[in-house]
Amino acid sequence: MGPRMNFKLTLQYDGTDFHGWQMQSNQRTVQGELTRVLSLMEKRDVIVHGSGRTDAGVHAEGQIASVQLHRPNTPEKLRSAINGNLERDVRVLEVEEENDDFHARFSARGKTYVYRVVNASVMSPFWVRYAHQEARRLDLEKMRAGAQLFLGEHDWTGFSSAQTEAENKVRTITDLQITERWDDRGLCNLLEITVTADGFLRYMVRSIAGTLLALARHEIDEATISRAVSRGERSLAGATAPACGLTLLRVQYD
Amino acid sequence: MGPRMNFKLTLQYDGTDFHGWQMQSNQRTVQGELTRVLSLMEKRDVIVHGSGRTDAGVHAEGQIASVQLHRPNTPEKLRSAINGNLERDVRVLEVEEENDDFHARFSARGKTYVYRVVNASVMSPFWVRYAHQEARRLDLEKMRAGAQLFLGEHDWTGFSSAQTEAENKVRTITDLQITERWDDRGLCNLLEITVTADGFLRYMVRSIAGTLLALARHEIDEATISRAVSRGERSLAGATAPACGLTLLRVQYD
Repeated sequence: MGPRMNFKLTLQYDGTDFHGWQMQSNQRTVQGELTRVLSLMEKRDVIVHGSGRTDAGVHAEGQIASVQLHRPNTPEKLRSAINGNLERDVRVLEVEEENDDFHARFSARGKTYVYRVVNASVMSPFWVRYAHQEARRLDLEKMRAGAQLFLGEHDWTGFSSAQTEAENKVRTITDLQITERWDDRGLCNLLEITVTADGFLRYMVRSIAGTLLALARHEIDEATISRAVSRGERSLAGATAPACGLTLLRVQYD
Repeated sequence: MGPRMNFKLTLQYDGTDFHGWQMQSNQRTVQGELTRVLSLMEKRDVIVHGSGRTDAGVHAEGQIASVQLHRPNTPEKLRSAINGNLERDVRVLEVEEENDDFHARFSARGKTYVYRVVNASVMSPFWVRYAHQEARRLDLEKMRAGAQLFLGEHDWTGFSSAQTEAENKVRTITDLQITERWDDRGLCNLLEITVTADGFLRYMVRSIAGTLLALARHEIDEATISRAVSRGERSLAGATAPACGLTLLRVQYD
């Protein structure tokens, strides 16, 4: 075996036909596909680390993975070889050589997710895989005011799944933006809820998005959200918004 | 039967899983799906007219259809009823009541198509259904200069399919724009060739796109394009670009 080298991969995937990131037997997952391809290339079992899991149906525009290879090639050739063995709904956009201590998960300092909502009576076929549809009128002013309540360091137990493995459920949300724009392609209003934090628990973004949408429909009020955030009470939060609307945008490293 | 009313439908479809617009036995087509749904609602065989055909794999952001109904409802309810019976890759965005003499095809004054090209070494999973990939460097200056050669009234025999049914092959291209922009979602350069004409022959936009791409790769020169356009010689034109990159943007009416 040659010298070991550590690589950082920047990945995009359309999560529609994946059973999420994490390898599972008998399920098509992103980690599973990458592990299969890289193990074949390395002629041994390779471990691919992701910055974190994404659930079934969740997309990624900039997921990060790291992997140590003994039969390295130039980053350019490595990228071509991996992509040549993957189906077209997942792509390695970039391969970079990194120091030995770089680890996609442990080196990550933060992540940014976007939750997309088409606010229109009819759902464009061009967004049906990538956004959630909300036909009702949404109160954006209320939503923007409500977004402020999520900022800062909190215990997010109330906005997470009971299945979450993390023991420490404290995370700090550093930014939460609500933007709306006309989408020329789908001929529809596209609402984007963009959240940055030092880390996320399972279902956290989807619970926040669901809660903000409930607020925008005047189904709950800001006081309820404040209580849900400060007390960590699941029952006070809104419904978990569907997976298809969620996309991992990017992972921050030092 | 009630009074007959004439409706204009604005449609979007992801053409990937359709065998084009035109009804065919044993093939899933957009006209076929609409005809099935409207005939069921009308309890008789209904004829759905499109502004024109789109080929297998070609998309539409604003295709227009017209249909006469004897059991009309409000446009809003009609839209809901149709959409409720269609799969999610085709949607009626709008239903409008029109005068009796409105006909999606015969009343059309012009159409605008866009041909999309991702100019990047790696094809984003978010564009793989909707754009053609070109990994080589493209000379945009040359392409823009070449675009001028297509403007005006010409016989487009050389840029059409032998299967084209139209007898008169003269069409007037009134606008042809080449734009390039960074696409934040796919993290790639997206090139758009947008063409407006009073009408199009089969494969015409894809042949023009293929020819402009050959010019952008320095495989043919402007003089060859001039000859191809003026003499209508197929052999001088570039290859027909793949269907997936083509989208019918809109149809113009008086």
